[in-house]
Amino acid sequence: MLTGGVGGAKLVSGLAGVLSDDQLTVIVNTGDDFEHLGLTICPDLDTVIYTLAGLANSHTGWGRVDETWNFLEALGELGGPTWFRLGDRDLALHHERTRLLGEDHLLTAVTHHICQALGVAVTVLPMSDQPVRTIVISDEGELSFQDYFVAHSCEPRVSGFHFDGLETASPAPGVLEALSATDLVVLCPSNPWVSLDPILAVSGIREAVAAKSVIGVSPIVGGKAIKGPAAKMFVDLGFKSSALTVAEHFQDLLSGLVIDREDDALASDIALLGMRVLVADTVMKNAEDRLRLAEEILDFASG
Amino acid sequence: MLTGGVGGAKLVSGLAGVLSDDQLTVIVNTGDDFEHLGLTICPDLDTVIYTLAGLANSHTGWGRVDETWNFLEALGELGGPTWFRLGDRDLALHHERTRLLGEDHLLTAVTHHICQALGVAVTVLPMSDQPVRTIVISDEGELSFQDYFVAHSCEPRVSGFHFDGLETASPAPGVLEALSATDLVVLCPSNPWVSLDPILAVSGIREAVAAKSVIGVSPIVGGKAIKGPAAKMFVDLGFKSSALTVAEHFQDLLSGLVIDREDDALASDIALLGMRVLVADTVMKNAEDRLRLAEEILDFASG
Repeated sequence: MLTGGVGGAKLVSGLAGVLSDDQLTVIVNTGDDFEHLGLTICPDLDTVIYTLAGLANSHTGWGRVDETWNFLEALGELGGPTWFRLGDRDLALHHERTRLLGEDHLLTAVTHHICQALGVAVTVLPMSDQPVRTIVISDEGELSFQDYFVAHSCEPRVSGFHFDGLETASPAPGVLEALSATDLVVLCPSNPWVSLDPILAVSGIREAVAAKSVIGVSPIVGGKAIKGPAAKMFVDLGFKSSALTVAEHFQDLLSGLVIDREDDALASDIALLGMRVLVADTVMKNAEDRLRLAEEILDFASG
Repeated sequence: MLTGGVGGAKLVSGLAGVLSDDQLTVIVNTGDDFEHLGLTICPDLDTVIYTLAGLANSHTGWGRVDETWNFLEALGELGGPTWFRLGDRDLALHHERTRLLGEDHLLTAVTHHICQALGVAVTVLPMSDQPVRTIVISDEGELSFQDYFVAHSCEPRVSGFHFDGLETASPAPGVLEALSATDLVVLCPSNPWVSLDPILAVSGIREAVAAKSVIGVSPIVGGKAIKGPAAKMFVDLGFKSSALTVAEHFQDLLSGLVIDREDDALASDIALLGMRVLVADTVMKNAEDRLRLAEEILDFASG
């Protein structure tokens, strides 16, 4: 499955609960990755790993449970940059990743090491070992994703995106192999523009996905995103924020789309695009929701 | 005054309590500095600054009060290097210093910034803006100071030292000016070999010190060091661990030496080396001890 951050990670954990470890490979967006305080920070990888490890902070949607903030408080007292929230425990992950990357380990290997250390048995792969960076084109100029997302609170009006580094990026080891070996690709309920598109933009991945049965899960429910700026991005870009727009966005890839019960009325229009539609409860509030949705998606895919 | 870590920092805080801010300049050893986790760590500067800021951890002798260890615990869970103890709040100081150094600020300016942020009004100067690194020559080979001190727990037998980087290091801005302007230089009760010698080895500093009235305070009391490996180093190097050896080590510089009441019997032998001797209570257990010793030293110097 392909995934970005919070919503995707929840479905990943549901699928991990239903499938055996070797039946699931998670390919994660790294377009949000950035350098901060000399550290390489991979927000989507971290969210997926923390979620699978049972360490995710369900209140914030990012970072770790049982977190403390003494580093950041002391950094603020020294006049350092505190706009990106780094918890004391979370900081260790960024440090260790950066240290290992500095010893010339590839991101794939570092991710595997971190998963092992935290007891995550599912295969989690970055989309690429080479840096790809999502740039948001906005009315305040071109902004790196975290600059747009955190420092600017998603306020600038978005007119497009590009992904720096694509020309030299190739899929991480294992990505094309996993896509080749699977019968089903799930596009998680993640932001189409900045979570899924960067993955699909890496050389060869879109073609490998297109050759498979692909099931999407709409991140837009009742016109709104459960988390993050997806809905606002649709509107900024001149689209209606709707599950139908999600269907249109991935029309060439999708065999089926899972939409929320709230969007029942859109089912027939989506079906007209040439894909099957499953109406389900897609908002995952707890572990049971995740497992149930995962089972429904697998049933739908095999149906 | 010239100082290294813990014992020196205590006397620095005593002198800071007795003198006005503009009467005191503290020149600090940076030979213990090292790179760890991509951070530039300056243990002696930090100990002096934390002590002057009232933030020093009096139990450990290093690091901050009210510290937490969640970063290090999480780093250990990931298999990262935990041999050097970094508290969550302390880590912020290393990060901010490293960030500012990376923006091409000099260590002197960074140190000034940190002092201002933490409310330290006394002038604290690194001995040099250029890296000088103390190397311990031992029966386990040449070890960087922190490798010897922390990772090897001072266990290897020491046969000598050298200071890497001396050929390109010059005194930090303000160091020679402060030494030129003062009437009195105090050599703090710090390790002669690895705290004071590195400072004196930086081009021009020893000559500037030698031109002044210099008062030393023995870090050896009753043959033992209050803190750290000074006593063991004396023995490893074939000397007797004693205040007399301290006097001999700095004989060419000292106008006077302050020794502990416990070492009263050594006073006449030390005086024979051509310096005045003050017998005092040199073990600083609390703030009153620091102030009293500082006052006695200033009285002794002016006497």
